[in-house]
Amino acid sequence: MTAPARPAPIQLCAGELVDVPRGLKGVVVTETRIGDVRGAEGFYHYREFSAIELAERCSLEQVWYLMFSGHLPTRSEQASFTEKIAPLRQLPKELRALLPAIARTGQHFLPLDGLRTALSLACSMRGMRPWLDISSEELRADALFATAIVPTLLAALYRLRQGLDPIEPAADLGTAENYLYMIRGERPTPQHARAVEKYMISTIDHGFNASTFTGRVIAGTGADLGACLVGAIGALSGPLHGGAPSRALDTLDAIGSPENIDAWVRPRVAAGERMMGFGHAVYKTEDPRSRMLRETARALGGDLVDFAIEVERRVVRILAEMKPGRQLYTNVEFFAGVVMHLCGLPREMFTPTFASSRVIGWAAHVLEQAAEAKIIRPSARYVGPPPPVPVPDPAD
Amino acid sequence: MTAPARPAPIQLCAGELVDVPRGLKGVVVTETRIGDVRGAEGFYHYREFSAIELAERCSLEQVWYLMFSGHLPTRSEQASFTEKIAPLRQLPKELRALLPAIARTGQHFLPLDGLRTALSLACSMRGMRPWLDISSEELRADALFATAIVPTLLAALYRLRQGLDPIEPAADLGTAENYLYMIRGERPTPQHARAVEKYMISTIDHGFNASTFTGRVIAGTGADLGACLVGAIGALSGPLHGGAPSRALDTLDAIGSPENIDAWVRPRVAAGERMMGFGHAVYKTEDPRSRMLRETARALGGDLVDFAIEVERRVVRILAEMKPGRQLYTNVEFFAGVVMHLCGLPREMFTPTFASSRVIGWAAHVLEQAAEAKIIRPSARYVGPPPPVPVPDPAD
Repeated sequence: MTAPARPAPIQLCAGELVDVPRGLKGVVVTETRIGDVRGAEGFYHYREFSAIELAERCSLEQVWYLMFSGHLPTRSEQASFTEKIAPLRQLPKELRALLPAIARTGQHFLPLDGLRTALSLACSMRGMRPWLDISSEELRADALFATAIVPTLLAALYRLRQGLDPIEPAADLGTAENYLYMIRGERPTPQHARAVEKYMISTIDHGFNASTFTGRVIAGTGADLGACLVGAIGALSGPLHGGAPSRALDTLDAIGSPENIDAWVRPRVAAGERMMGFGHAVYKTEDPRSRMLRETARALGGDLVDFAIEVERRVVRILAEMKPGRQLYTNVEFFAGVVMHLCGLPREMFTPTFASSRVIGWAAHVLEQAAEAKIIRPSARYVGPPPPVPVPDPAD
Repeated sequence: MTAPARPAPIQLCAGELVDVPRGLKGVVVTETRIGDVRGAEGFYHYREFSAIELAERCSLEQVWYLMFSGHLPTRSEQASFTEKIAPLRQLPKELRALLPAIARTGQHFLPLDGLRTALSLACSMRGMRPWLDISSEELRADALFATAIVPTLLAALYRLRQGLDPIEPAADLGTAENYLYMIRGERPTPQHARAVEKYMISTIDHGFNASTFTGRVIAGTGADLGACLVGAIGALSGPLHGGAPSRALDTLDAIGSPENIDAWVRPRVAAGERMMGFGHAVYKTEDPRSRMLRETARALGGDLVDFAIEVERRVVRILAEMKPGRQLYTNVEFFAGVVMHLCGLPREMFTPTFASSRVIGWAAHVLEQAAEAKIIRPSARYVGPPPPVPVPDPAD
């Protein structure tokens, strides 16, 4: 695996400025030991392990531990980690009292907006302080608290919005299993729990995406962990980032049956529309998450899975024909939507489920940024009319 | 005024990476028409106008209008803007009902954390949607709503935490005057109102600081305006950014009287401690905000002002002697604390008062970022052990 070409690092004297590409694509802003994405190879990793191999072989708790500590837990470390998490899933009473009002806010149910408010409040109730003012052990404890409570908050917001009572977390269930249980109100089958767990593990981290970067920029100011995660949730709620695994599923619904695929897809591609669930900013090969989730879906089985695989096969071929050289394959969203649907998750909870695992990655990045203790403060180039123009009296 | 030296813009081919300085200092990440800071000249501007001249000559509402629209309002534009703002200052009833619980959250009163939750909720209650899904007029209306309600939220959180009832905003008062009124419960003198108004105008914007950048990174994902502002509030709550004008005032208290200055300051400077209220990352001259606020304080008058001016004079001299070549002067915090104290603002509301004006700058930047519609997604260099290492079975 050869490293991509790299110009010499930019070094600036005091007062010097350098212009970099808009959107910071390809601009290396820091070093990390958390993981990386190799877009050209279709490979990504957490620490030194293939993320996909971790998803195939580990529990969510093992990988969560890995992300926070840098190594996979021994059996006894794992047992004590599991024990530590269980009580942190519980909703504090004062928070529980306010959740119904948060859940019914807004004409449309936007679970990530509800999570933004609820997690902000949960972190304040815990009394989180700027990480600059606390020990690294206290910061780690904050990180565990916040990541453990997110699935509970999301499930409670969902049920309250449905007019249902929130379900108490079950201490004997793993995180993914418990999350499904708290949303649906019945214990999921082991196969469903494991499918969602694999999805969650595979979405914990993925390079320096916009929400992760947001969390680190906020962490750079020394702010409390809650501030960092609440900002990251905001970034994930943007359609250009958090996307919508549900839209890929909507596309399957719209196509309806195999004989409609060409008639539905070709005119849209010709008109320049993006096919939901196809193409990725970083991967120029098959998205490794897509490959894993296709197999996960196949194991769950059923007509929807067969249809999705057929749509994938045909759309990839149509895109190769109509957009030659673009190398467009299914991304994580395409089979994620199918898997989550088959496991009984409602569509409005697809992106929130993503948030419930990604929050582990955000927190790991905040822990790393805190160890660096450096404010992130770039520059912008002013391109308006040159100042100073004297301030005129108000015109009539 | 000559432009600083600048290397050629970095242009990258697909897959190429370039390393830039940590913390992005000197790295130009975008273009802006909102304003700039010229650290070497001790000058900063909003649009094409000197920010200090705007603070001296305009009302907060005029500058607010300028930040959002790009031009100073005519008299009739100003009148209709004022009319539009007045009802937006009111707390929606459902929000009012939840504020007491938010205000009493946490062992210590952290008004910015309360604002983070309250503004998140307020934006959800308004039904804000991702800016990518709405018109630019709707986004502007969201921006006006959020910036108008922040002073009311802060004042209400403060009073509720004191066990007092929130004060209804007064439609006939300007923003700064009304803010002071809602906190103190009595109409401020015109001199106090104007002093705080000048402070607020002078802190609306200041280059690509960490909170402004946070807001723009979140905006890059297409998220709703509330998500952007809530993230920016989180960044401002970090001690390395929002700082603490109150700490400069605490220093004055600790020194106590002119004859103690040398004995208090010299050993601390010798020990490498930072003097609160002195030095700035960007200004290598006197901070223009400090100069204006010194005059504002002088006009308010009194023993504290005389003492502060004497402390400034002596500390600047001691720093020049003990840290030669560092050019350390008072920054915005030093006299801001004095001015806010003299105008009757409690110390815990100093940084929140800063937030109540900076939110206008954040919103202006979000409006500009929205027009650009580009996700901000940098890279990081992985420096951990090389992957893929096979995932081992758990050790005992």
